[in-house]
Amino acid sequence: MADVLQTALTVRLGLRVPIVCAPMAGVAGGSLAAAVSQAGGLGMLGVGSATPPDWIGEQAQLTRDADRAYGIGLMAWAQQGNPGQLGAAIAAAPALVSVSFGEYAPYVAPLHDAGILVATQVGTVAQARDAVDAGVDVIVARGSEAGGHGPYGLATLPLLQAVLDAVPDTPVLAAGGIATGRGLAAVLAAGAAGAWVGTAFLGCPEAANHPAARERLCAAGGEETIYTRVFDIGRGIPWPPEYGGRALANDFSARWHGAEDALAGDKAAHRVLQDAISARDYRQAVLYAGQGIGSLTAQRPAAEVVTRMATQAAELLERRTAT
Amino acid sequence: MADVLQTALTVRLGLRVPIVCAPMAGVAGGSLAAAVSQAGGLGMLGVGSATPPDWIGEQAQLTRDADRAYGIGLMAWAQQGNPGQLGAAIAAAPALVSVSFGEYAPYVAPLHDAGILVATQVGTVAQARDAVDAGVDVIVARGSEAGGHGPYGLATLPLLQAVLDAVPDTPVLAAGGIATGRGLAAVLAAGAAGAWVGTAFLGCPEAANHPAARERLCAAGGEETIYTRVFDIGRGIPWPPEYGGRALANDFSARWHGAEDALAGDKAAHRVLQDAISARDYRQAVLYAGQGIGSLTAQRPAAEVVTRMATQAAELLERRTAT
Repeated sequence: MADVLQTALTVRLGLRVPIVCAPMAGVAGGSLAAAVSQAGGLGMLGVGSATPPDWIGEQAQLTRDADRAYGIGLMAWAQQGNPGQLGAAIAAAPALVSVSFGEYAPYVAPLHDAGILVATQVGTVAQARDAVDAGVDVIVARGSEAGGHGPYGLATLPLLQAVLDAVPDTPVLAAGGIATGRGLAAVLAAGAAGAWVGTAFLGCPEAANHPAARERLCAAGGEETIYTRVFDIGRGIPWPPEYGGRALANDFSARWHGAEDALAGDKAAHRVLQDAISARDYRQAVLYAGQGIGSLTAQRPAAEVVTRMATQAAELLERRTAT
Repeated sequence: MADVLQTALTVRLGLRVPIVCAPMAGVAGGSLAAAVSQAGGLGMLGVGSATPPDWIGEQAQLTRDADRAYGIGLMAWAQQGNPGQLGAAIAAAPALVSVSFGEYAPYVAPLHDAGILVATQVGTVAQARDAVDAGVDVIVARGSEAGGHGPYGLATLPLLQAVLDAVPDTPVLAAGGIATGRGLAAVLAAGAAGAWVGTAFLGCPEAANHPAARERLCAAGGEETIYTRVFDIGRGIPWPPEYGGRALANDFSARWHGAEDALAGDKAAHRVLQDAISARDYRQAVLYAGQGIGSLTAQRPAAEVVTRMATQAAELLERRTAT
């Protein structure tokens, strides 16, 4: 791949392309991670709060055939309640582990002791500085347009500029709204070491989501997302209240967003959501997606997603300096 | 200035730098516009909804000495109630007039007849397509992290990618969160013809805001802004309800955001706001600013803002392709 795409991240991890596939729980299993890594990016396993530790080793096995670097993403707030995940992640010997959303600092040393690089997602400049102080190797500057869970704060572009200026000696990845090669070129030009991309991989056949979900996601427009806590409340997933998630807005979010307290005690509503998830009825069931979802219009293999983004980004960067 | 910064916009308007200073009402008068244009960007006059038409000609006179292209920004929704503004703008013979937020289409032909380019701000892909259909020459893709007024929708990075793909034959400027040369490099790499920058100019001595406002703005962090309608409601400015504004959060927004209906009828609260504005007490008075405000840390002349952004962007773009 073009030299124009080489960064501190690609050099450090032996990647051809500065794209990290976000560790999306329920979507990013071993098949997707292997496909992304095989294509030259960094695939990651997305570990949910309730995911059994054994799952990590099983899925990691799928990435072994690719014989390339991959990563694992853990939720910091879930570690105390699911203490086997960290050990399983270390045992799987990935190149990188991200620990985000909650107290990640205690996990930096054990990962470093195992020779594993540590990443964490930040939403403010202060959090970026804290992460560097905690010894984190890779900062993920996650803007509020990103899909899935995280805090709600600055958008990617202003956050990225501020974080890059605040922690100049640490590789920074940009997350949130990077939907095409245009977005990849943008964040690289700004000075990011790469892009942390989730939504663009939601239509991959290697993903662990259902084909019906992929079909719905490919049809959605960028304006259809909402940042909300109602899907976690409705499913009884104990995300700390400061973390909502960005998902496709639907009848369930229209009914309950803004009425979270009532939803918490409404068992019938919980059943509606659970039944809809089982039936894959996305009028009620949740589909996490970022504001880049409007640029996802077709189901494509992960290798094609990686190569298209990388090729377009390289062309844009070379064209700009050739003018 | 470096070739790497040349775009369809700079060529068309004879600029050295692809930076447009947003037409911020109450901030962007003739002195700021002249300074930005003199520095190689495109200065603009920000015309408020109640601004007397005569103001336009007076301020335009200040830009004449610069002998460079400049622009004028009008609010579409205010034109019917203040019909002299359009004629005054045409008489001032700027290179570009932006007409945004409301029914701008009727004003395209009269401006074109006078040989003036037309821009409009969009927040969705559909609005971008409509603008091209209406004959608009320059599309401003305005993300929701932008300061001041606009609709609330996609953030700049996902919006920009989608708009660039949707209207490939029209120059697109990126607006919202472009705070430093990193942001300028980013949007140029993505394919934008330039950056529409407001917040970064809020600390310029040439701006029409008060030195006390500049001081407060330079001290603010990026996380301090809020998108709200309370300041318009409190001041009785008849912005259509679909347009809020992003400003520094303060005691007034903390008290009234979410209680807009009550605020509308509370004359005492209106007086508190008006008194605070007169007294420049920013615990209650409004200061519009975007999420890039955290990167504004010092009062600097407009020429320095333009040159710093341009120099940094050129270096970043050249460095990326030199690796």
